[in-house]
Amino acid sequence: MKNCVIASTSTLYGQESLTYLLDTISELYMDCKQVLFIPYARPGGISHDEYTQRMQRIFKKIGKKVIGSHTFESPEKALQQTEGIYTGGGNTFLLVDQLYRTHTMQVLAEAINQGKPYLGTSAGSNICGLTMQTTNDMPIVYPPSFKTLGILPFNINPHYLDPNPNSKHKGETRATRIKEFHTLNPQPVVGLREGSWLRLKNNSIILEGELTARVFTKHKEPYEISPNSSLSDLN
Amino acid sequence: MKNCVIASTSTLYGQESLTYLLDTISELYMDCKQVLFIPYARPGGISHDEYTQRMQRIFKKIGKKVIGSHTFESPEKALQQTEGIYTGGGNTFLLVDQLYRTHTMQVLAEAINQGKPYLGTSAGSNICGLTMQTTNDMPIVYPPSFKTLGILPFNINPHYLDPNPNSKHKGETRATRIKEFHTLNPQPVVGLREGSWLRLKNNSIILEGELTARVFTKHKEPYEISPNSSLSDLN
Repeated sequence: MKNCVIASTSTLYGQESLTYLLDTISELYMDCKQVLFIPYARPGGISHDEYTQRMQRIFKKIGKKVIGSHTFESPEKALQQTEGIYTGGGNTFLLVDQLYRTHTMQVLAEAINQGKPYLGTSAGSNICGLTMQTTNDMPIVYPPSFKTLGILPFNINPHYLDPNPNSKHKGETRATRIKEFHTLNPQPVVGLREGSWLRLKNNSIILEGELTARVFTKHKEPYEISPNSSLSDLN
Repeated sequence: MKNCVIASTSTLYGQESLTYLLDTISELYMDCKQVLFIPYARPGGISHDEYTQRMQRIFKKIGKKVIGSHTFESPEKALQQTEGIYTGGGNTFLLVDQLYRTHTMQVLAEAINQGKPYLGTSAGSNICGLTMQTTNDMPIVYPPSFKTLGILPFNINPHYLDPNPNSKHKGETRATRIKEFHTLNPQPVVGLREGSWLRLKNNSIILEGELTARVFTKHKEPYEISPNSSLSDLN
């Protein structure tokens, strides 16, 4: 039992946050009056309250109430009792650190595995993989582990960017970084471009949105998959 | 006693590795016949041997012999006995993990503090800061700590990139990432553009190369410093 939308980004260029996903999440949260928001990733360092208020304004458009997980004395219980969950983007190291510190990593995985509707964007999608090791974020805090929810049998690289053939910059491309990852780690990595998301229903994993995604495995050349392809057998 | 060249990158666009730095490192290694190369960062996942051979070819141009630290039974002793040191770029998480695993993080700091000529590029520069937490690299391995050499009283962001005003990509800019770092960490961060390096001599730290660098501190707006500026008082 899984019911998740795992998106590369919350926001597309020139749009307000989640605009391109409103129909998708209206369907996802169909049976929820209220959504528990996990604001720990704090994009740009904004406060949990400010981040939650931002999401409250956006979720009003689809008639849903949003409560921040940070406002509960026991975020653990809040997760057990909520009808739906959204983990927003920001810094993945900070998000993972806070999930461990609040003892909610395991509880969150259980809630998702029980079928509670889950939306993740960016950092909130990264944690759905086996580990957070294909994040693009800076290690601004040292989490107790890089292990994450394992809702997917592979890793995610959100905000996937193709190498720019005109770039004169000598920092590693995203593809090189993922190749380095595969020298030490076995699991496939799905590079999700902005505007793409994975739709999980029970054991089915489908690529949605209008773009292709790039799949990196340890021993093969990377390859593209089309929208509406299944990733259910990738592991 | 310090004598270091801490460079943003080994390689400039369209050039062979270290070409733009050959005069600088000829002077740095003036009194060394031989340089100990630390290849642990393994760019693109190449082997220690291959990486070392690549550097041997380049150092031949300035008449220096290069030996890989991985070829010694005790890299610790090799560091204590060598005349000069070069740590190459690649993945900073892997480099830091290997320095801890080979018990050489502390020994390397001592060798540099004793005045042994040290060249760092990219990941090899990152580790000169107080922590590796302003790296751009992927966390492909979980190191025992993010603490690094502390040769500099601040952190480095190598391969510093200005935000691209025409970009439609919604991943965080480098400046936003460093702002997130400062919500949790106090030390300044020097964004070193490709082609810039810091020249440490005793307690003097000078920005060299033809470009300005960007300095990020916790409570001020970021600012630019000119080539030949001193960073000796930044902490």
